[in-house]
Amino acid sequence: MFKYNIGIIGGSTADEFYCNIAYKVGYLLSKNGCAVFCGGKTGVMECASHGVYDAGGFVAGFMPEYTKNGGNKYLSLVIPTGIGYLRNFLIIRASDALIAIDGKSGTTSEAAFALTEGKSVISIGNLNIDVKEGDGKLIRVKTPEEAVERAMDEAGKYTSKFGEK
Amino acid sequence: MFKYNIGIIGGSTADEFYCNIAYKVGYLLSKNGCAVFCGGKTGVMECASHGVYDAGGFVAGFMPEYTKNGGNKYLSLVIPTGIGYLRNFLIIRASDALIAIDGKSGTTSEAAFALTEGKSVISIGNLNIDVKEGDGKLIRVKTPEEAVERAMDEAGKYTSKFGEK
Amino acid sequence: MFKYNIGIIGGSTADEFYCNIAYKVGYLLSKNGCAVFCGGKTGVMECASHGVYDAGGFVAGFMPEYTKNGGNKYLSLVIPTGIGYLRNFLIIRASDALIAIDGKSGTTSEAAFALTEGKSVISIGNLNIDVKEGDGKLIRVKTPEEAVERAMDEAGKYTSKFGEK
Amino acid sequence: MFKYNIGIIGGSTADEFYCNIAYKVGYLLSKNGCAVFCGGKTGVMECASHGVYDAGGFVAGFMPEYTKNGGNKYLSLVIPTGIGYLRNFLIIRASDALIAIDGKSGTTSEAAFALTEGKSVISIGNLNIDVKEGDGKLIRVKTPEEAVERAMDEAGKYTSKFGEK
Repeated sequence: MFKYNIGIIGGSTADEFYCNIAYKVGYLLSKNGCAVFCGGKTGVMECASHGVYDAGGFVAGFMPEYTKNGGNKYLSLVIPTGIGYLRNFLIIRASDALIAIDGKSGTTSEAAFALTEGKSVISIGNLNIDVKEGDGKLIRVKTPEEAVERAMDEAGKYTSKFGEK
Repeated sequence: MFKYNIGIIGGSTADEFYCNIAYKVGYLLSKNGCAVFCGGKTGVMECASHGVYDAGGFVAGFMPEYTKNGGNKYLSLVIPTGIGYLRNFLIIRASDALIAIDGKSGTTSEAAFALTEGKSVISIGNLNIDVKEGDGKLIRVKTPEEAVERAMDEAGKYTSKFGEK
Repeated sequence: MFKYNIGIIGGSTADEFYCNIAYKVGYLLSKNGCAVFCGGKTGVMECASHGVYDAGGFVAGFMPEYTKNGGNKYLSLVIPTGIGYLRNFLIIRASDALIAIDGKSGTTSEAAFALTEGKSVISIGNLNIDVKEGDGKLIRVKTPEEAVERAMDEAGKYTSKFGEK
Repeated sequence: MFKYNIGIIGGSTADEFYCNIAYKVGYLLSKNGCAVFCGGKTGVMECASHGVYDAGGFVAGFMPEYTKNGGNKYLSLVIPTGIGYLRNFLIIRASDALIAIDGKSGTTSEAAFALTEGKSVISIGNLNIDVKEGDGKLIRVKTPEEAVERAMDEAGKYTSKFGEK
């Protein structure tokens, strides 16, 4: 059993700077006993999966497709969904807290949905979302170490705003 | 049959200014032969539904709940889903183009997902999303008349970036 | 506003016998003020839509695809979902009661899910499902008239077993 | 990485006979390098998870709820979905082949959906579904050993009927 479920969200391309951050976030989450969820593809998803892989951890990728073929090679578990990018929101539902690394419209939709559902999003990058009462927290950090520490802290405090149903 | 499917997205509360805009948008879409989709609840959703109702148009509300009871009184059709706020994204999938009126995290997640799926979002308000290549267009307008005109124009040009599957 | 939401489920091919039944069921539901939901395609879905159309009623089709193009010509409203055959279960969630006409594995999965969710299924044909305690009722009838009468009766008694959440 | 994704479906109660079968199926799948998916709850799901646990394997449970609390104690990974019993069909989408053990309406809906999607279902018990052309195979077996052998064989031959999208 894992300590927490943490989702890592970010773009399907990543420059070296953000790839290193994603790698380190995945690595540290694994070393701290967390299961990692991501979109299973390239970019931030692959860099994070690589970090998990090297740490001997566990990372599951929710695939947009009906098949496992499109997953990156570092995934521990490939979960085909056949629902296209709606799979983004299964990542959010599966996670106790989220770490957003860089990213554009796709990452914004995921992070904003997480907040709406009362889950906290730790952001490394330029994410800018107008939070409302009852939403989760949007927490900006600079380093992978801070991201993982804050994410685990928030995950530990998470209770569903919708109750147990 | 309706000319286009247009989704109206926005917050569950609305001040008089944005309520009037939502009403007018709903009214004009109906007078132009469009079916309207929304979240079926209060605020921008109810104001828009009211406009559709007064124009003798058609508005469907996707409900988070398993039942029809929580829908506003102006809906033509209540569609229970039982999937909570994930219903937001059924609105996006059902629509040819979107009109976003004001709104915070919930509206941001919907609008950003629409863009990701290649659908255009006409925004009245402060929506701020980092669009990437292949995304739909984020178009800022000031008036309900412009919003409806641009939404119908974009809806007419819409083809799925995922093909016919 | 419609009296009830009734889903019509059945195969994507229909012989003349079952097509006539589906047509009549759609026709009668419309004359009785019900909104009809179906899968929007051929066979039982198209025959039922045709009946609704001729009665001047309303029928919505949930499409597996991302686009409206594959819907039959009698639909009042086409609802693209992009989730493939998972759209079957949106029909179940949207409906107060179901009418199953003939059908094989696809119809069986829909009817069995409806029962699991506590919704009644009126069956014309050979549907055979092992119902458990807490499930909806599986009611066998012979004629469209009976099907519509029983479906409306069950729809009127329906309350979600999951409460208002 | 796991050899195949195999879903185990069955009722939320299980007598000793079927519980032993479920346990053995879970155990053998794990010893053969497969990841197991199930609904994460009691009955067949828990017995199968127990078998996986004792074999040192991996079993993920898709939860109907928003939280991890309702999962059985043998799960390796708990995946909250918040979509209620629609989570059944995520199990089907995630799996290369399915093993159905006993079960009533819920299991029938899952198995029938799997067949519709072109996936094979290995059945120990009384499952009775009218298969159509293009569907997966419904294969009846008597023992856990046969079930696992046939499931792995079918999983190895599985290709999505919807292509790579």
